[in-house]
Parts: sequence; structure tokens; C-alpha cells
Amino acid sequence: MKIAVLGAGAMGMLFGGYLSQKNEVYLIEVNEDRVRFINENGLQVREKDGSDGRYYPKAVSNTDGIGPVDLIIVFVKAMFTVDALTSNRGLIGPDTYIMTLQNGAGHEAKLLQFADEKHVIIGSTQHNSSIIENGHVNHGGSGKTSIGLPGGGSQVLQPIADAFTACGFECVTSNEVKKQIWTKLFTNTAASSLTAVLQVPLGYIYSDPAAHELMIKLCKEAVAVANAEGFARFDEAEVIAGVETVCKNAPNGYTSIYADVRDGRRTEVDTISGSVVDAAHALGVSVPCHEMIVSLIHALERRPRA
Amino acid sequence: MKIAVLGAGAMGMLFGGYLSQKNEVYLIEVNEDRVRFINENGLQVREKDGSDGRYYPKAVSNTDGIGPVDLIIVFVKAMFTVDALTSNRGLIGPDTYIMTLQNGAGHEAKLLQFADEKHVIIGSTQHNSSIIENGHVNHGGSGKTSIGLPGGGSQVLQPIADAFTACGFECVTSNEVKKQIWTKLFTNTAASSLTAVLQVPLGYIYSDPAAHELMIKLCKEAVAVANAEGFARFDEAEVIAGVETVCKNAPNGYTSIYADVRDGRRTEVDTISGSVVDAAHALGVSVPCHEMIVSLIHALERRPRA
Repeated sequence: MKIAVLGAGAMGMLFGGYLSQKNEVYLIEVNEDRVRFINENGLQVREKDGSDGRYYPKAVSNTDGIGPVDLIIVFVKAMFTVDALTSNRGLIGPDTYIMTLQNGAGHEAKLLQFADEKHVIIGSTQHNSSIIENGHVNHGGSGKTSIGLPGGGSQVLQPIADAFTACGFECVTSNEVKKQIWTKLFTNTAASSLTAVLQVPLGYIYSDPAAHELMIKLCKEAVAVANAEGFARFDEAEVIAGVETVCKNAPNGYTSIYADVRDGRRTEVDTISGSVVDAAHALGVSVPCHEMIVSLIHALERRPRA
Repeated sequence: MKIAVLGAGAMGMLFGGYLSQKNEVYLIEVNEDRVRFINENGLQVREKDGSDGRYYPKAVSNTDGIGPVDLIIVFVKAMFTVDALTSNRGLIGPDTYIMTLQNGAGHEAKLLQFADEKHVIIGSTQHNSSIIENGHVNHGGSGKTSIGLPGGGSQVLQPIADAFTACGFECVTSNEVKKQIWTKLFTNTAASSLTAVLQVPLGYIYSDPAAHELMIKLCKEAVAVANAEGFARFDEAEVIAGVETVCKNAPNGYTSIYADVRDGRRTEVDTISGSVVDAAHALGVSVPCHEMIVSLIHALERRPRA
């Protein structure tokens, strides 16, 4: 397959690297230094056993002349999705699939500005990755990847799932992807967001009574929004228990949004809790705690450094 | 005057001690050891100049037989106010005044369960006190004390104000006490609380758009609670402008609650934003942002230190 990965961040490098083993992969990145570095050195993926794999996707900052690809995977931050696709419209032909594996809800609405419902793929992956240094990422977590079409009939995506699996991403097609995305979102919006505001590891969200109470409130709001969407029915108690399990299983786990706030970087809160707020407003659901979390995290991103 | 002071904490000992110079003062305390200690040794007040004054109010754990008093001053923690008054109902006659000088809002609603509007006194004092050891307090701050009736006509309290002044508490009557208490509370609950959560100086609450938005939400909730109480009428825009002015005038000002969170100490959030939440619940006003601020600050107080 001819694949374009938009964004050579941690996840873009992981997917671009792995998929380049058996596909023609273009890694699209606006940072020219990173493009040059990857083309000169390849990119390295540090596995859990400590070994480093080296991969050679073609990195480019300009996609003129590449022409339509079979698949675009969007891995830029959500606020840049529309810009990135607009700048690289030449990659999109009538048969091009555009896939989002980004965190949060509501990405498909943006992708649908560039392709029809039969060519927009929503997905959820358990793989994660963080940048060690230029062109070198740490493959911190593995697991299943699920992909599907928003309107169902996802089995037509089997060739893409097979291509992913062949390159090391165990991938299935599913008509339940939206449900899976929400399940992941519950943890991110109700627990990860609090680790950012409180600057604590995940375990604290379960062990501290006040943090736990906040987590439950955020879960309840998010479940109300998910259920208002109508595509799936979530049970509040089950969702809370699921988020609690994630926290209990990672007592000393630090989230990426925690690190972003700690280091004064812009976070992905708009695609996580912010996407819940956007959906809530569209559906007429009241989410005061989510609104407050989003504002708090934005205020923390910009605060003067001590 | 025959005066009962409920609670031999730091403030109760200060007021009970000073007032015992020219009045018949009963210091009501459930802790029998403290009662015995005070009756055997008197209580000591360390002044700013380092000197210690010794005072001899009568400490009791059981008020049977004392009969109605002229004035009860409530200095127990807010959550014990109703219990303490219930347990000592014998002190309350038809002419007994019940006074609160506690921090925060909503205390008078509790007092009004035990006396009519003409006998409930709300007050605000600039004196403060902390416990050094058993029966020994440090008189850390002095200043004016204002007392008033919730419904106005506070000049009838002049004899009580005079009795306070005669014992070392410069005291005036005012019909604006309620307004003064809330005005101070608006800044504390809408701005100081955020400096704690965000760990920023006061100026940031005005200068950062997200922090400013949160401040406005907290102001609106607090004004709704204050107006639901009905003792004073506040204008939202005026309150917001007032809090903004405090923030603008102290761009690099650090609040005590900020420092408490920074240093991992227990804060006074329960008597500030927490008292707004309590009053809101009693009045049926929705205050989701205040509830969240209280939980966040408690979670921050206990978080593991980096």
C-alpha cells in the first residue's frame, strides 16, 4: 500500500516506521530538521526489551508530486488536523482512505470534510509511543488496534487491517470502534485530565478520596454525553469501575498530559475533555466539571514557570 | 454581661479570656481535659510584644444550671455549630443574643434555628489567634470587629459593642456586616482559590483568559448564593469588577492558600469555598464549580511531594 502518515510525532514515527517494512510510506512533517534527520539516519524504535529497531520511511515536508495515496493516517495534534489535510490535498484521491487514530472524540467530523463516509476510518489503538530524542521513540505500550467506518460495514477494511497486522500492529475491523473510543476517552477525560491538574500519578486518582470523587463526577458527565449520542449505551457504574481499574493498575504511572503541564507545553486537552465538552454542547448535555477541567488545564499550560 | 463562649479553640480562648476581665464568662468545651486545665491554671494569651496575659473564665463541659445568658458567641468549627447549640439549649432564653464571628458564609442560617432575627448577631473580626499549647494561645493579629443584625437595626447592639471595646476588642455596630463578609469571601472563593489550584500569583487570575473565565464562573455562583440568602443584594458585574481590581492591584501577590498548597499544608478551603458550598446546599443553589474547587484543593493538599 501507498501510505501517508501526517505528523512525525511519537505516534506518527512508530506507525510510519513499522508500516514502512511492507509498504511505501511517506512521513509528512513540517519540521524540516526532523525530516532531514529521519532521511539521513532512519528512525529508531526502542522496544520494551531494550532493543532498538531501525526503520526507513521516506520523510517529506512537501507532498507535491506524490499523488493520491491509498491511505492517510492522521497523527498531527487535533487542532492541526484540518490544516494538515488542507495543505496536503494532493494526497487525497477518490479512493483514498483517511484514518484517525487520534485520542478523543469528534475527529471524524473533520475528516469528513475531505472524504465521504465510506472513506473515513475511525480507529483506536493500544499502542503508545513517546519521543526519546530526535528520530528515536520509545514504544511504551502495545495491544490491539481496531478500525471501522462510522456508518458500519467495517469489514471492507479487512485488507487495511491485514496490512497493519503484517507490520506488527495486531489489527481488527469492528463496528464497535466508537464504543471503544469512548471507553478510552472515559479514562483520559476522567483520570488523565486530573493527573495533569493535580500533577500526580494515575494511582492517586483512585487512592485520594477527593481526587476519586472528582473522577466519578467526570465519568458521570462523560457517560451522559456518550449515551446522549445514542450509538451505544454505557453503564455509569461499569465505566467508573473501568477507570478505577486503570488507575489501580498504574499507581506510579505518569500520563503524557501530566508531563505536558509539568513542562509547560500545550496539551491535548481540547481533543480529550474538550471533545466531550463540544459533543455535550451539541447535544444539550450539562458538563460543568468538564468545562472547568478544560479551562484549568489551559490556564496551567500558560502559567509562569517557577 | 453573662456570656457563654462555645468552643475553647484558639479564637474561643482569646475572646473568652479577654471578655472575662469585665464579664461573667463561661467557656464551653467538650474536651474535659482542656476544661480542667483552664480551671486549674487559667488561660494565657501571648501578645505581639511577647508578654503573656492570664485570664480566668469559667470553663465547663456541661452547662446545666447556668441558665440563660445575655450572649452566646459561637466559636466551634462550622460543622459543629448546630450540635453545640442543641446540646446547650439551656443557655438560650428569649433575650439571649447568639453571635457568630466564624469565617465564611452561612453561619446565621444555623443560628436562626435557635433565635429570632433580632437576636442573631453576625460579625467579622480582624483578630486572630492560634494555639501554642494547652490553655495557651498566640494573639497573632488585631484590628476592628464589626457586629450587626442580619435584618438591620444593628445600633441596638451598641451595649455589646461597648462591652467588647471595654475588654480590648475595638468593636462597632454596622448594618453592612453581611456585605463586608461576602465581599471578602468573593475574592477568596473566586480568586484566591484559583491561585492555589493553579499555583500562580493573583495577577494571573486576571491576565490569563482561561483563569479569568474560571474566576467569573466562581463569582457568579457565589453571588447567586449570597443573593439567595437574602440579607444583601449583590450585582454580578460589580462583584466581578471588584475581584478583578484586587487581582490587578496585586499582579505578583501570593495568597496564603497558594502557599499552603505549595508547601503541602492543610488549607482553609472549607471555611472559604466550602462555606459557599454549604450555604448553597442549604439554599438549593447549584455550585458545581465551587464543589470542584473544594475537592481539587483537598486533593492538592494531600498529593505526594515531588
